[in-house]
Amino acid sequence: MIGNVIVGQSGGPTSVINSSLLGVFKTAKDRGAKKIYGMLHGIKGLLDDQYVDLAEKIKTDIDIDLLKRTPSSYLGSCRYKLPEIEGNEETYQKIFAKLDVLGIKYFFYIGGNDSMDTIKQLSDYAALVHSDISFMGVPKTIDNDLAVTDHTPGFGSAAKYIAATVKEIIRDGLVYDYPTITIVEIMGRNAGWLTASAALAKGEDCEGVDMIYLPEKVFDIDKFMARVRKISVAGHSMVIAVSEGIKVEDGRYVFELSDHVEFVDAFGHKQLAGSAKFLANKIGSELGIKTRAVELSTMQRCAAHMTSRTDITEAFNVGGAAVKAAFEGESGRVVVLKRISDDPYMCITETHDVHDIANVEKKVPLEWITDDDYVTDELIHYIRPLIQAELSPIMVDGLPRHLNVNF
Amino acid sequence: MIGNVIVGQSGGPTSVINSSLLGVFKTAKDRGAKKIYGMLHGIKGLLDDQYVDLAEKIKTDIDIDLLKRTPSSYLGSCRYKLPEIEGNEETYQKIFAKLDVLGIKYFFYIGGNDSMDTIKQLSDYAALVHSDISFMGVPKTIDNDLAVTDHTPGFGSAAKYIAATVKEIIRDGLVYDYPTITIVEIMGRNAGWLTASAALAKGEDCEGVDMIYLPEKVFDIDKFMARVRKISVAGHSMVIAVSEGIKVEDGRYVFELSDHVEFVDAFGHKQLAGSAKFLANKIGSELGIKTRAVELSTMQRCAAHMTSRTDITEAFNVGGAAVKAAFEGESGRVVVLKRISDDPYMCITETHDVHDIANVEKKVPLEWITDDDYVTDELIHYIRPLIQAELSPIMVDGLPRHLNVNF
Repeated sequence: MIGNVIVGQSGGPTSVINSSLLGVFKTAKDRGAKKIYGMLHGIKGLLDDQYVDLAEKIKTDIDIDLLKRTPSSYLGSCRYKLPEIEGNEETYQKIFAKLDVLGIKYFFYIGGNDSMDTIKQLSDYAALVHSDISFMGVPKTIDNDLAVTDHTPGFGSAAKYIAATVKEIIRDGLVYDYPTITIVEIMGRNAGWLTASAALAKGEDCEGVDMIYLPEKVFDIDKFMARVRKISVAGHSMVIAVSEGIKVEDGRYVFELSDHVEFVDAFGHKQLAGSAKFLANKIGSELGIKTRAVELSTMQRCAAHMTSRTDITEAFNVGGAAVKAAFEGESGRVVVLKRISDDPYMCITETHDVHDIANVEKKVPLEWITDDDYVTDELIHYIRPLIQAELSPIMVDGLPRHLNVNF
Repeated sequence: MIGNVIVGQSGGPTSVINSSLLGVFKTAKDRGAKKIYGMLHGIKGLLDDQYVDLAEKIKTDIDIDLLKRTPSSYLGSCRYKLPEIEGNEETYQKIFAKLDVLGIKYFFYIGGNDSMDTIKQLSDYAALVHSDISFMGVPKTIDNDLAVTDHTPGFGSAAKYIAATVKEIIRDGLVYDYPTITIVEIMGRNAGWLTASAALAKGEDCEGVDMIYLPEKVFDIDKFMARVRKISVAGHSMVIAVSEGIKVEDGRYVFELSDHVEFVDAFGHKQLAGSAKFLANKIGSELGIKTRAVELSTMQRCAAHMTSRTDITEAFNVGGAAVKAAFEGESGRVVVLKRISDDPYMCITETHDVHDIANVEKKVPLEWITDDDYVTDELIHYIRPLIQAELSPIMVDGLPRHLNVNF
């Protein structure tokens, strides 16, 4: 007799995080789990006795297919970090007592490196108290900054949305016969994987972006301005991709450079424009060129109408693989993707010790960033397979249909 | 023997403006036009002898199908306004001389109300000098602010993109268990049609946006803040749609209210945040709530991967109808759409005197805006048919493919 299962979603949502939830749900159900609970708002929901019986929410095949196309975390999310075990045993006792009441033997947490810390702490505590509950991490983040795994589910769909949207912005940005400069700001405060995805826009039918700036490399603002001046004086329009997290040499973010901006809120915090807005304003004022700052904002993580089928499938698979490993006795581990072939692209799942993954950030290798403010072909070849194939939206009355969220 | 044809695109681009270009091209070709020229960058290109023979650019069926899916103006655009005829006859003589050299008998201009001014001026001048060249306007604008026509091609696709994206932003915005406020800024400086489209997000699977603010109605910032405070104190998250052009009672735009902002560029111009950013900052600082401003920016006018098939078809049809009318002897007129049935939705084309359309803005009727900061069902029923059906992108190597622009 298989014990009960509980699963939660945590951290920033993605377009495919619900496919991982389905991977856990369907695999656990197929393998005989009696009850599969979903924590609402992650571990915080569990602490507040907020959970659902997933079989009551995901009932039919159409529910499953709609959930695959529903962005953001179906079960809700949280940004809650568990305290250190030492000195906070009562928090852990409370959690384990609640798991006991529900008869939970398998605990799955879908999230990024912060969320993997939850799995680390809970499995460490389980070892300490000789609990037989299995704790498994299921990777998820658009940022692709998780260690050990080849890439993270969620990244491929965000990369596809970014590349497709940047292609469209390039067409829009190059339409006039005088120089205009469009700066596209892309998420990833510390890791440039998403911003690098803008490079995929370039192809037979698209000029691509002119420059790409990742946070891994110091942003030389004088060199940037000189380059923009040179190209625009020659009469050319440009589209430039920048990470929200680009920094200048002294370590300040570009969006912190705005000595002109003096928007101070009621708490005395400076309200800052984004990196793209700052650069667009600077170019506009110093070079007198028409500029536009475009932020891809939350759309890049919730555009479920434009996902990668490869990503959806892998997101499902890491959820299913976590269940399989847990049911076979593993705990304190995270499912990772291992690329076993580049061409043709093939990826398998493995599991890895959570201690090597929690709280670690994987950045873009510096040798994949070129001196002429672009990225190498290696980086493009690394990302390209992850955006392949589509899962067409289910269109109802003109709009993509999602699964109702009615908790 | 049919004379030669020339066609141009002008003003801000849309996702379907190239379908109107195709409507002109294909209909003119089918009806026996010998040469069909495309002005590059509108009338400005003609003045600079920048034009192409369209048959050399659009050669195959696949070219046609790719062009339907290519956003922004394939021929480039301009924001050039012709001067008054009186006192500037030499400009008009120059244009007509160039048309003469090319043997042009039919001139088509695809654009919004500014662009229709070009048709008005040219057809007025033609009458003055007894020219037999026909000048016809083909309507285009995401803003839907053109007079006489039921709606404008370009609007339906932008509305579909906005509604679909707002649905996704709502899922993303309601994911946490503490109140967060997302403010989505939508284009339309003076007309609220696009912002109103956010109302289409609401349905069986979506809570919809909480409030919608159009530029047609004075924005009461105190009432707004009181309402946000009340809902957020109750613990609810919110998604709010605002037009970029909302104004307070004294006539200032909301984005001009930022007395805190002192970003002054080299020319002494105040650099301003958008309406959404201003309101998000205000809520964040005064109410201490987590906020996010999302600007749909140029994406709402160039998202060719998410167009309305109804819109694409109508965009093609207005181009074709302009050719038919011109070949039958009309000039100084604009093709307009006339809704002959609401349910089932049916629209036909007619032509109308350009003098009633050029430089006139059609706004949202005040009776379609409710006192509780939303829009009426009439407004939703007006927009809904325009977003119906899809034109699926042609996906190549993971991304939507466009027609090469290689002039």
